[in-house]
Amino acid sequence: MGLGFMGASLAASCKRFGMGRVSAYDPIGARCSWAQSAGIVDRAYPDIAGAVKNADLVVSAAPVDRIVETLLEASRNVPGHALLTDLGSTRSMIDEQLAGALPKGVAHAGSHPLAGSEKTGPEGCSDILFVGKLVLLTPVSASEAQLRLLQGFWETLGARVETMDSVQHDRILAQTSHLPHLVAYALAQSLPGDWHNFAATGFRDTTRIAKGSPEIWGPIMHSNRKMVLEALDRFEQELARWRETLVGGDPEKIRDLVAEANQIRKAIG
Amino acid sequence: MGLGFMGASLAASCKRFGMGRVSAYDPIGARCSWAQSAGIVDRAYPDIAGAVKNADLVVSAAPVDRIVETLLEASRNVPGHALLTDLGSTRSMIDEQLAGALPKGVAHAGSHPLAGSEKTGPEGCSDILFVGKLVLLTPVSASEAQLRLLQGFWETLGARVETMDSVQHDRILAQTSHLPHLVAYALAQSLPGDWHNFAATGFRDTTRIAKGSPEIWGPIMHSNRKMVLEALDRFEQELARWRETLVGGDPEKIRDLVAEANQIRKAIG
Repeated sequence: MGLGFMGASLAASCKRFGMGRVSAYDPIGARCSWAQSAGIVDRAYPDIAGAVKNADLVVSAAPVDRIVETLLEASRNVPGHALLTDLGSTRSMIDEQLAGALPKGVAHAGSHPLAGSEKTGPEGCSDILFVGKLVLLTPVSASEAQLRLLQGFWETLGARVETMDSVQHDRILAQTSHLPHLVAYALAQSLPGDWHNFAATGFRDTTRIAKGSPEIWGPIMHSNRKMVLEALDRFEQELARWRETLVGGDPEKIRDLVAEANQIRKAIG
Repeated sequence: MGLGFMGASLAASCKRFGMGRVSAYDPIGARCSWAQSAGIVDRAYPDIAGAVKNADLVVSAAPVDRIVETLLEASRNVPGHALLTDLGSTRSMIDEQLAGALPKGVAHAGSHPLAGSEKTGPEGCSDILFVGKLVLLTPVSASEAQLRLLQGFWETLGARVETMDSVQHDRILAQTSHLPHLVAYALAQSLPGDWHNFAATGFRDTTRIAKGSPEIWGPIMHSNRKMVLEALDRFEQELARWRETLVGGDPEKIRDLVAEANQIRKAIG
């Protein structure tokens, strides 16, 4: 459900790696016809009921603030054995909103692929987007057997899978993804307008993720704001250490602080 | 002078674009023999006096804390008409240390190419590193005629040139280059060690410049620390705006703040 960059890449990956029939839903007619003519889906529907009626697995690739409504609509139209999942970048808010709202017997698990892009729309989609990437599964109400099915699904698309609970997911992602976005936003916003010409490779790379769509990233930042504020605390403690060291003015201590960061960054690979 | 990544790239560019004789100095014998066998210099010398004795233009590509000593040594050995320049990423400290120290009649100007890389050492050098890049000239004691010569030199290597005074240079670069480095360092340092596996593309891109050598970046951060602290003030004002908006919890306001940053970043290209 949803033929943006992520949904279209998922559909294309399913076709490439020989999954069965792939049906898609998107409210935008042009995306549906594009997906069909590009061959990344067997059929695209303008309504959720049509797309999910024979589904074994339903994946919502909607923006994080619209995942719940697509899953609820799907849950009323799927066969009884179907598993619902979604690609949401934050998990706790979705769990809270779905709790008690899904029909009895319909199970849900989160599937967050760590495979971002600042791209939007289906045209730039990639059928190898998930190859070698890590997908974080949050089990919620899925059974062991359903989780194994979901793991097999992602592994077929070339991904690796790790399972964790939703709160831990949100805490980690606040630090590894949402905080870097916030930092990229604030860096871009702190650049005086007449200095744009002097923003070279370093500035561009460091702020590249600020290019991501506000319709996708606004809801992510909102839904995980408590964890993001905790990550911001940690980051500001490091900034304070930098400020103190620069004010101190000792060239050796400044070099040592650069070397410390340099070691950490190199260890990440 | 200096066959690190920048110096070697400059030498290779001079050969590629048909400059005259290129002589290099590096204290490391292995770099000198590599540069000669790779054909990026006509001859490499283990001493400055040998390398500069017939020079029209002398370029120091040493780390920013060792530029002054290389220029002073060169100034005692060059022909009277030679112009001295250097690739230093900060300018004011170099100007202050050279003021009154150069022999009468020997002129100096800064040449800072906005063409960074986290690479170190000559082996990864590029003979098209400066093509399409901006080089910031700080005139200091160079005459108009010497500045025209220097501009022509860089344009021959494919670069564009802009002239400004050293203080303005340092103020701008603190914001466009040194602050992004500081932010990348602090981001890397704020990541708990057991979460390294979850640092995906966004985190890696945002912190890539933290891979730069401490021997190069420590002295840059030190020499421009006053301007960097000013840029950090501006950045922290933006972080405070983010904190306030996240605490407020209004999804529309959060989305609008993402959209504002997104517009700015897209305008940079």
